[in-house]
Amino acid sequence: MGNATHVTIVYQLAADSRSQAEQIAENISIEQSVEMPAGTVPASASASLPTIEKVDPIDENLWKAVIHYPVSIIDGDPTQFLNVLYGNISLLDGIKLLDVHDQYFAELLSGPAFGIQGIRKLLNVHTRPLSCTALKPVGLSAVELAGRAGQFARGGIDIIKDDHGLADQSTAAFTERVSNCLKAIRDGEQHSGKRTCYFPNITTSPARLFSRFQLAVDLGAEGVLISPQLTGIEAMHEIAKTAQVPVMAHPAFSGPYVIPKSTGFSMELYYGKLWRAFGADAIIYPNAGGRFTFSKETCQALNQQIRKDFCIFKPSFPVPAGGIDLVSIPDWIKEYGKETIFLVGGSLYKQDTGIEQATATFQQMLGPDE
Amino acid sequence: MGNATHVTIVYQLAADSRSQAEQIAENISIEQSVEMPAGTVPASASASLPTIEKVDPIDENLWKAVIHYPVSIIDGDPTQFLNVLYGNISLLDGIKLLDVHDQYFAELLSGPAFGIQGIRKLLNVHTRPLSCTALKPVGLSAVELAGRAGQFARGGIDIIKDDHGLADQSTAAFTERVSNCLKAIRDGEQHSGKRTCYFPNITTSPARLFSRFQLAVDLGAEGVLISPQLTGIEAMHEIAKTAQVPVMAHPAFSGPYVIPKSTGFSMELYYGKLWRAFGADAIIYPNAGGRFTFSKETCQALNQQIRKDFCIFKPSFPVPAGGIDLVSIPDWIKEYGKETIFLVGGSLYKQDTGIEQATATFQQMLGPDE
Repeated sequence: MGNATHVTIVYQLAADSRSQAEQIAENISIEQSVEMPAGTVPASASASLPTIEKVDPIDENLWKAVIHYPVSIIDGDPTQFLNVLYGNISLLDGIKLLDVHDQYFAELLSGPAFGIQGIRKLLNVHTRPLSCTALKPVGLSAVELAGRAGQFARGGIDIIKDDHGLADQSTAAFTERVSNCLKAIRDGEQHSGKRTCYFPNITTSPARLFSRFQLAVDLGAEGVLISPQLTGIEAMHEIAKTAQVPVMAHPAFSGPYVIPKSTGFSMELYYGKLWRAFGADAIIYPNAGGRFTFSKETCQALNQQIRKDFCIFKPSFPVPAGGIDLVSIPDWIKEYGKETIFLVGGSLYKQDTGIEQATATFQQMLGPDE
Repeated sequence: MGNATHVTIVYQLAADSRSQAEQIAENISIEQSVEMPAGTVPASASASLPTIEKVDPIDENLWKAVIHYPVSIIDGDPTQFLNVLYGNISLLDGIKLLDVHDQYFAELLSGPAFGIQGIRKLLNVHTRPLSCTALKPVGLSAVELAGRAGQFARGGIDIIKDDHGLADQSTAAFTERVSNCLKAIRDGEQHSGKRTCYFPNITTSPARLFSRFQLAVDLGAEGVLISPQLTGIEAMHEIAKTAQVPVMAHPAFSGPYVIPKSTGFSMELYYGKLWRAFGADAIIYPNAGGRFTFSKETCQALNQQIRKDFCIFKPSFPVPAGGIDLVSIPDWIKEYGKETIFLVGGSLYKQDTGIEQATATFQQMLGPDE
């Protein structure tokens, strides 16, 4: 701990020439550190100045810059780390963050408390891929939602997460929903003979988030769902650091950080490195071929980043989602491998056989555990 | 309170035809509410379904959709309101939020506790535009920063805000920085014969934000600076609701919500309506002609939105920033009018006359108070 002197950030820059790219890199290094015009930085603050390692061409009008920032300007505050990564330059078009080098992450952040092995242990499932579904829609009563949760559990689903739009609406208030669903799931487990975990959505304001988290844990929930771009990313880290139950991260409100080509972050950096380092044990993202528009190659790269060696952090589970058709699950398993949680929502609800049988079919597709 | 049955959201959609635009509007209304395939929404949840009022052409391949969402799916949770506005559709390109109709804001949110009149009262300045500068750079000691704060105060500046990159770094730890700066400012006021307010940056994680806020207030700070896209937007609302001191909002990390043409929010909606409704008394944005790239027309429209009648909310101060040259201040006053806080940072630091004299020149440009 405390050995890194610099954090190294890799940017993609849109520029017409090398000299323009170098000027942009210089501007970024100033904007994200001292934020003062050249010549006005006092000598006693010179240790705050970044150094530009290099600016290399990537493609026509596209450059890669590597800049080293002194960690003294972050000094242990994860939210200030995010600010140094992308605070003011978020307001400039043509700058995309490709990567942040690893060492400093481990000094600043805790990563997942459970990760792949921790979630597998909760479920007592060791090798096969995992199944997940979303409990919905908003507007049903707690009893009605619990009825659905019970059917999923009878069918043998591994994880039921709340729809990210289930908050504390009076139609199914949080405590009532979580209690009823857990009871129905425990009953359903008697039928299926296997474990089903429930991850209620605790996304809300900072003032209510921690008490809602503790309430979920105290009621017996085996995990929680958080949309970190709504709660503040470090809020997720603070929940994860308690190491009480796994955290599943939902991408609501995060699209503009990864969708535009010329701004934001690479998917691998944003969901794969940042969210994992900030404590997500499982990371939901919009899969290729569904309602959203990422390519299969991008999703593959993201899966790898979520699972691969990264500092001292446990590997997390990628959770492809967003319109996966039940019949396509065997193909996706071939593509993404076993260390994946497949989140199927709508496609289970619309099977003519009903939820319980559709879930049993889903479970069969995952193959035996070994 | 509690009278609105629906919240009305206006979207800009990229689509090749009316039928495609109508399909996208339909998809949005489902995605942002029940998130289930057509035909699978149970009758008992039908009250959660939005209604599409209309889809009209704006321009070639550009459409406007107006959708009414039942407030029951939000039910009093401001963070869930943000999720309904933009949660999952943030992941789809080609959808931009143009406006949200007013009524529901006032039922859900408190708006600024001080606003223009409250900040003017603190400063005892009634009609002229206000001056603001940024205390920096990171890396200076608390004593060095306080020396600068004192010079600004001697020059008669109205508001000194911390650079948004000043957190709790050991070079100038929060308590030491705020105490020293306030002392130097009080001394400087003796020289200038007028009030100077200090707004330290309290942006940090949810777990530390509220205690840092209270510390700032207890030390005597007259306001605070928050980057709501780093803390979570509702965290700002919770700070503002305490109504202890004004909140100045900084746009760090918010660029992707307003920069891309085909996704995110209009500037007026995001900074002008949302941040104001979530409690910002003063809203910093990157001004035209500086280091960032918004047009003067966009900035004018934003200024108007920040100040104009909007529910029961007090008007807030627009704070144009990001590379304003001191010599251009008289022109900007003509453009933006007196109900504006002009934030000049770097340009004051680089004047040959030194900070105190540069600040006095800045103050003279603002004209007399009447």
